[in-house]
Amino acid sequence: METNDLILVSVDDHVIEPRDMFDAHIPDKYRDRAPRVLVDDNGDEYWLFEDERAAYMGLNAVAGCPPEEYGLSPTRYDQMRPGCYDVHERVRDMNANGVLASINFPTFPHFCGQLFARAKDKDLAINVVRAYNDWHIDEWCGSYPDRFIPCAITPFWDPQLMADEVRRTAAKGCHSVTFSENPEKLGHPGLHVDHWDPFWAACVETGTVVNMHIGSSSAMIVTSLDAPADVSIAVTPMNSFLALCDLMWTPIFKKFPGIKIALSEGGIGWIPYALERMDYVYEHHHAWTGADFGGQRPSDVFHEHVLTCFIDDASGLEQRHRVGVDGIMWECDYPHSDSTWPTSPELLSKSLHGIPDDEVAKITHQNAMRAYQFDPFSIRPKEQCTVGALRAEAADVDVSIKSIGKPVGGGGALTARQLAAIARPAALDE
Amino acid sequence: METNDLILVSVDDHVIEPRDMFDAHIPDKYRDRAPRVLVDDNGDEYWLFEDERAAYMGLNAVAGCPPEEYGLSPTRYDQMRPGCYDVHERVRDMNANGVLASINFPTFPHFCGQLFARAKDKDLAINVVRAYNDWHIDEWCGSYPDRFIPCAITPFWDPQLMADEVRRTAAKGCHSVTFSENPEKLGHPGLHVDHWDPFWAACVETGTVVNMHIGSSSAMIVTSLDAPADVSIAVTPMNSFLALCDLMWTPIFKKFPGIKIALSEGGIGWIPYALERMDYVYEHHHAWTGADFGGQRPSDVFHEHVLTCFIDDASGLEQRHRVGVDGIMWECDYPHSDSTWPTSPELLSKSLHGIPDDEVAKITHQNAMRAYQFDPFSIRPKEQCTVGALRAEAADVDVSIKSIGKPVGGGGALTARQLAAIARPAALDE
Repeated sequence: METNDLILVSVDDHVIEPRDMFDAHIPDKYRDRAPRVLVDDNGDEYWLFEDERAAYMGLNAVAGCPPEEYGLSPTRYDQMRPGCYDVHERVRDMNANGVLASINFPTFPHFCGQLFARAKDKDLAINVVRAYNDWHIDEWCGSYPDRFIPCAITPFWDPQLMADEVRRTAAKGCHSVTFSENPEKLGHPGLHVDHWDPFWAACVETGTVVNMHIGSSSAMIVTSLDAPADVSIAVTPMNSFLALCDLMWTPIFKKFPGIKIALSEGGIGWIPYALERMDYVYEHHHAWTGADFGGQRPSDVFHEHVLTCFIDDASGLEQRHRVGVDGIMWECDYPHSDSTWPTSPELLSKSLHGIPDDEVAKITHQNAMRAYQFDPFSIRPKEQCTVGALRAEAADVDVSIKSIGKPVGGGGALTARQLAAIARPAALDE
Repeated sequence: METNDLILVSVDDHVIEPRDMFDAHIPDKYRDRAPRVLVDDNGDEYWLFEDERAAYMGLNAVAGCPPEEYGLSPTRYDQMRPGCYDVHERVRDMNANGVLASINFPTFPHFCGQLFARAKDKDLAINVVRAYNDWHIDEWCGSYPDRFIPCAITPFWDPQLMADEVRRTAAKGCHSVTFSENPEKLGHPGLHVDHWDPFWAACVETGTVVNMHIGSSSAMIVTSLDAPADVSIAVTPMNSFLALCDLMWTPIFKKFPGIKIALSEGGIGWIPYALERMDYVYEHHHAWTGADFGGQRPSDVFHEHVLTCFIDDASGLEQRHRVGVDGIMWECDYPHSDSTWPTSPELLSKSLHGIPDDEVAKITHQNAMRAYQFDPFSIRPKEQCTVGALRAEAADVDVSIKSIGKPVGGGGALTARQLAAIARPAALDE
């Protein structure tokens, strides 16, 4: 298939929340306690909620910035591409990259809303969660319903409230929710107990996909405290490996046969091995552990329930039939440092070489459209959804690399110890 | 290739140390303080060293035992196949499985001798380490030099003593040493500092391969404390993924260009993904982290230095050229619960279907023979080394499954919490 003919739906990108996001959505009663952006003595901007300062935006907002300057920068909105936080500019950046549509995960509340779940005042927090979702669904995604797949956060300190919020957001047309790959690491019950059942039930009832983004346990895998940042970055997809193995032996898939889980930013190249490994463990050990998949193997259960996604993953695509062609989705990861923006179509095209068109269509957009009940073609004619058509609308978008100045932290390698201490104070809690 | 024509060298099996192992090797001065086997009030046998009781042998010695009875059993020698601890019976069990030769990792001192490194009296400990190696090299492996590749442990509390022991054992013909996949988890400096340089230097000088067995960090990966044992077992190979990523960004490969590392029991199916991931991280991040592989990519460095091994890994064999055909080795894992004994040749044959004979030869024995400087054919004519020839010598070996009685711990699933508390008290230290 020609690069220009691809239709790209990315199931994992990120929004840097704009300063004014709560203005139109938070009830008056909570207005002066809503999260807000402040400036510290260094001129760095940060979100404050109750008395907690959210993490630096750093590697989360580097689209268009030279790799030499990656690090904890940028720390101010004016250092970022406006596409990070302005939806109209975002759509222009998507056009420039030929991307039709996108799921946008949260930034300052963390991948699944951890910041709000830590709130002391839970009445405030539930109102903030609802306002966040209203902004995200109605304002951000709602501005371009053919360009965004909405994804709600949940008040995950209370499974009944979670279920209510899943139903409330589903009624607005949102069929995607972000949840933790490992809530036990966040101080909540793990996935093996029935604590979360109201949530799973609401997701099944509303056809809502549960996205577990790597890092959504706030537990950075630390190999060694002296390891440079490269190691921490390289091992993050193993969070998905761990989440998958953990999930497989929970009662969730048995109790909620309709549940769908997406391993966001998990990669796919390791999936064939993981499936073999899980089947092997099942075959060798179920007689003494009592594991029971109703006559199926773990790999069968996986193919029924788990969606996968990748940025650039040649070995995984080569073994796509082992991964499951009907479950593979693509992602761009804008504006994070691992993103392929603005040359995603070219890179992807290379990886897709030799794969039949019908499988390419599944991987690039059909699987995501089906899973998330997303139908952009009802709004925008399909022929205007291709890489070529979208890029033709973006001739004036400047995608050149622009300096944002000296990196915070002095640049250079940061060790796991430094990364944990500076950027994510809770990351060593593991 | 016909199953009977395969020649199998297994680079990862395990010895249950016999009770009398120290008798002929420990200096008189330390004789009454050498590790010894005691019996507790339940009739369970265990090794005691100084005041530390070694972990249950459990899942480590279940060859020939029905899977229904796996768990913390067996806890007594008389529950195990004699092949676990008797070298003559071991060779008969190898014959019955068509296995020519084998590397045997330690059991009661843990995979790299952790028990001895925790000793209070380091003078005692170094004598115990030397006695262990003398027993292993001279007595156990020395009884059948065509059937065992010796593998030394090290006094890893002191890198200079380690270097001395590597040279001492190399002089006896041992070119393999077991070391930790992550010494930081054992309370020692990590791999990113120069602490271990005398050890690496001695390994390069003597052509000794450093084996990092999964679990040799004593750090069990715990997804959730409520997760059943299946999960803990399924995720263990990720220790190798973490060790590999950690190693890659250490200075070791640059400073010691001759070093060879084997990821024992690491599996191979995840390697293509890991290589792509490491290259991706290098390409996207080296400009700001300063990572420098001398113009190479991490995958290039990997192929020069890292040996891999697998038990049964179809996806990895399918992508063997990505893994590196010259670095893949096979393992049997006798007498552990993940072992394929006594039907390894049949299972392996199925996985090798369609692979050219020259590659099969590399994977089944040539890579291991080269890496470990092991030449069984100089002792035993090659035509007597095949699966068919060895099995012909073992017609009287009974490989039928035999009950060992009610499992310790009542059988059934054990959670990560219980496993950690009962079997490996240090496992939650992570």
